[in-house]
Amino acid sequence: MAVRNIKLAIQYDGSDYSGWQTQPGKKTIQQTLNEAIGNLLGCKINVTGASRTDAGVSALGQVALFQIDSPIPTENLARAITDRLPPDIAVTEAVEVPKGFDVIGLVKNKLYRYAICTSPVRPVLQIRHCWHLPAELNTDAMAEAAKFLVGKKDFKSFVSAVDNRENSVRTIFRCGVVAENDWMHVDIEGDGFLYNMVRNIVGTLAEVGLGRLTPERIKQIIEAKDRTAAGPIAPAAGLCLMWIKYA
Amino acid sequence: MAVRNIKLAIQYDGSDYSGWQTQPGKKTIQQTLNEAIGNLLGCKINVTGASRTDAGVSALGQVALFQIDSPIPTENLARAITDRLPPDIAVTEAVEVPKGFDVIGLVKNKLYRYAICTSPVRPVLQIRHCWHLPAELNTDAMAEAAKFLVGKKDFKSFVSAVDNRENSVRTIFRCGVVAENDWMHVDIEGDGFLYNMVRNIVGTLAEVGLGRLTPERIKQIIEAKDRTAAGPIAPAAGLCLMWIKYA
Repeated sequence: MAVRNIKLAIQYDGSDYSGWQTQPGKKTIQQTLNEAIGNLLGCKINVTGASRTDAGVSALGQVALFQIDSPIPTENLARAITDRLPPDIAVTEAVEVPKGFDVIGLVKNKLYRYAICTSPVRPVLQIRHCWHLPAELNTDAMAEAAKFLVGKKDFKSFVSAVDNRENSVRTIFRCGVVAENDWMHVDIEGDGFLYNMVRNIVGTLAEVGLGRLTPERIKQIIEAKDRTAAGPIAPAAGLCLMWIKYA
Repeated sequence: MAVRNIKLAIQYDGSDYSGWQTQPGKKTIQQTLNEAIGNLLGCKINVTGASRTDAGVSALGQVALFQIDSPIPTENLARAITDRLPPDIAVTEAVEVPKGFDVIGLVKNKLYRYAICTSPVRPVLQIRHCWHLPAELNTDAMAEAAKFLVGKKDFKSFVSAVDNRENSVRTIFRCGVVAENDWMHVDIEGDGFLYNMVRNIVGTLAEVGLGRLTPERIKQIIEAKDRTAAGPIAPAAGLCLMWIKYA
């Protein structure tokens, strides 16, 4: 029987996980999926994720791929896997894709959304999915700063662990800042993201919102190509991978 | 120094707690508050809650009372207590109330809100705060059934642990059923609630929504004064105490 490629759409609350990637002795999303699918299909499974989300980061649009040589139909597969998963993970779709489908390499566009709660009162019911920053943030200044991030640029200033071998040029298609009542969302669409890049961008935009940096400083920060030029990292809890688009 | 009465407004995500009430060897909201306030004020504190919410039930409008004989100002007290609480509990207000204020006896009206998610997809980010019931619920039938619950009635059929000594007559002022997209909320306002009463009412209304009971059956269920006449209990996760009003 020929090996088949199954692509999954996955949603999870990452709060109680040590991120996507399997690590010895830690509870991760990847490992939890491997076990649930392996248990269902009765074989060893290794899913490859399109995005290696960090500890505490959630997803509504993660994509992953695995290979099987069983003739199991994909109809009802998502539900059967979900039934074997804990309540904070769900597989929403399972489809067969052609041999050679590259779940990482073929990504064209991803949207990450970052949620900030500016209420003076701690938002107890949403605290696992936001950064509670009880302050007046200047939304206009943040939106202005965000414009400087759009385009094909070297985002080295926003990479946490500097890896000199890595090419840090990425394209950001859109960076939107929207505020409503006590909530602010920063939406960042791009063709790929470096380690901690979104959280470092949001932490820097927050400095602008707090009036500690001018919007124009973002330009200089990008040009510096130096992590220490940018602001502090924003907490993982506020981040959610919303969707991934393929070519 | 005279003993002073301090009234607190409290919010919490009850998912990780064994309910409000202190129990040996369990993590409870009451005990967590006692420790945080005791730690702040340097004395033994015992807060009395207006509602003894069950394990897994959340609150945005819990009220509690405690006595101190220290002259500590109430200004900034809410924030100082919150700073000593875990992220899933917050004190939003602290005010001094007159001696003899009865935090349970003086309650005039409470609102409990119950959230049901009817989406075929498991709502991973809201799963701690809803009942996931992936089905078509007949909202109109549920709203019609809810009307029979309004008024001063004996709600014995909706009490989980029957205590023959207890008077099970309560007044429900309003019982509203509202659906929008994949979400349904059942709002129940009343002067007091019996053990598991809201969850038993919601479980019974869901039977109506699923077409297993007619709306009119609610009348007979109330008249039966027998727990076995009503539907199954709804899960704790969907329930939230929204507010409490005093005379």
